[in-house]
Amino acid sequence: MKDAQLFALTPGEPAGIGPDLCLLLSREAQPQPLVAIASQQLLAERATQLGLDIRLLPVGPGHWPQRPADAGALYVWDTPLGAPVRCGQLDPANAGYVLETLTRAGRGCLDGDFAGMITAPVHKGVINEAGIAFSGHTEFLAELTQTQQVVMMLATRGLRVALVTTHLPLRQVADAISAERLERVTRILHADLRDKFGLDDPRILVCGLNPHAGEGGHLGHEEIDIIEPTLERLRAEGMQLIGPLPADTLFTPKHLEHCDAVLAMYHDQGLPVLKYKGFGAAVNVTLGLPIIRTSVDHGTALDLAGTGRIDGGSLLVALETAYQMAASRAKAG
Amino acid sequence: MKDAQLFALTPGEPAGIGPDLCLLLSREAQPQPLVAIASQQLLAERATQLGLDIRLLPVGPGHWPQRPADAGALYVWDTPLGAPVRCGQLDPANAGYVLETLTRAGRGCLDGDFAGMITAPVHKGVINEAGIAFSGHTEFLAELTQTQQVVMMLATRGLRVALVTTHLPLRQVADAISAERLERVTRILHADLRDKFGLDDPRILVCGLNPHAGEGGHLGHEEIDIIEPTLERLRAEGMQLIGPLPADTLFTPKHLEHCDAVLAMYHDQGLPVLKYKGFGAAVNVTLGLPIIRTSVDHGTALDLAGTGRIDGGSLLVALETAYQMAASRAKAG
Repeated sequence: MKDAQLFALTPGEPAGIGPDLCLLLSREAQPQPLVAIASQQLLAERATQLGLDIRLLPVGPGHWPQRPADAGALYVWDTPLGAPVRCGQLDPANAGYVLETLTRAGRGCLDGDFAGMITAPVHKGVINEAGIAFSGHTEFLAELTQTQQVVMMLATRGLRVALVTTHLPLRQVADAISAERLERVTRILHADLRDKFGLDDPRILVCGLNPHAGEGGHLGHEEIDIIEPTLERLRAEGMQLIGPLPADTLFTPKHLEHCDAVLAMYHDQGLPVLKYKGFGAAVNVTLGLPIIRTSVDHGTALDLAGTGRIDGGSLLVALETAYQMAASRAKAG
Repeated sequence: MKDAQLFALTPGEPAGIGPDLCLLLSREAQPQPLVAIASQQLLAERATQLGLDIRLLPVGPGHWPQRPADAGALYVWDTPLGAPVRCGQLDPANAGYVLETLTRAGRGCLDGDFAGMITAPVHKGVINEAGIAFSGHTEFLAELTQTQQVVMMLATRGLRVALVTTHLPLRQVADAISAERLERVTRILHADLRDKFGLDDPRILVCGLNPHAGEGGHLGHEEIDIIEPTLERLRAEGMQLIGPLPADTLFTPKHLEHCDAVLAMYHDQGLPVLKYKGFGAAVNVTLGLPIIRTSVDHGTALDLAGTGRIDGGSLLVALETAYQMAASRAKAG
């Protein structure tokens, strides 16, 4: 176990606010050494545009920093752009650059150079326009690390919400809730809360699929046919799983008080409350990977790049969460 | 326009906490005269059980009160029970009693005796056991008032959420979102915000059906095929309708700040945030009726009847909302 752990930060889409966020962050010292994997030229130009005086300190394989950079400085693993960048202007010529920064970060985590990676937003559309099949950070990192199943969890201070299904049209959700999927997702959530969040015996609240959790079969049968038997089977292994509970009573202080995470069946059942509670300070965590990865919960905000009128709250929570996860993992052994 | 308006309060299931709530409420004076439609004997017994000294003042057709009762007193329109009541013990013999209290309240509103009605929870199951088809207050009052379409809206201080679909299994939701239904519901919501809430030009935020509001068709087509064209048509009539927006970004201060109501496509998309924000102080309002009806947002809590360990916050908001709605209506016309 090392004293200082090194983390990778990928600024994502170069025409968006990712580079700005990294620079704004560097005005203060970080508790851990942090390396931005990005074009040094891009960062220098963006700093000028923002009127920020940030020293960019080149690092790379064989030359990793041992201690956090001072306030006003940022370690950079220089990664060349495909084309010059103009704020707000997407350019498919930089799609390869974006993916290279992710690959460097992911491989560095696998190789043990980095204790975890934190990602700023990418733009899926422009990567696809470049002729590269890409459906998001999560899928890209799952493939890079040869992971079969990952779980999306959003977290803010005081609440974590993991999802059984994520980006599916609503009409496909009910059929996607199989006993097999629910079991896989629950196992990953439980294992990662233990291993990456330091919770010995995590307590998970599980939503029903239907309103009122099906109201005894009057409002749908998936709770009776699929969710209850699956939870029962996993409880027999010793997991603390409470539910299925109606989503509109679960998200109240009485239930949330003693819970470590909520497992929602689908996107709009779980995330509106989380973002209502945590907006501007929520983090997206990918569970199930062999590496630690957290992300901001917002998009590229192309119109705000270079303006300085942005809120770095989500990136701060993403960093804080990655540091805590890595510390828990190191402690666990 | 009368100075004082008379309101009806139905305690609902006699073995639940409804009678307790009415009695606890009566410790303080109300701003408007309020009549409990219930068995006077039941209320007297429950008051004894709770150790409350509440004077029950008999009123009825032809003998309506002109001013609010004093603190420590409650007007009662005596309605005979079918059988004696024991706290927590459901009895189908009282199903007829429960429906009679609702009928008296609803007819009284139609006849102009009452400016509105406020309902405590009923127990659907025991009414059905008595051989009476009954699917809830809302449907019962729709039939009593010969209303084709009603809209369920929950409200708490600072947020109102109306639903396009309500108690449907999740797998039936997507097919239930038709242009026709969306238009009918939106018209009712808009008209009632204007006529019963005194909002001249209400501003309504509308959720998409799919995650990210379909993300331009990548995550579902209902936004493009149904929701957008319907909103466009209604906007052409002058309605302020914003959306369809992703549910997980809509419920954030930036969007909610200048909105009068949110229209969610289904139960668990809209109600978790509302109940998270307003738990213990949320009210259920039935829109589209020719009468004003509000309700508490909780159930009968059979295990707590007679204990005094209950929170009357939701009933207070239900009363407050009914008073405000009636005042807006009186003002409008």
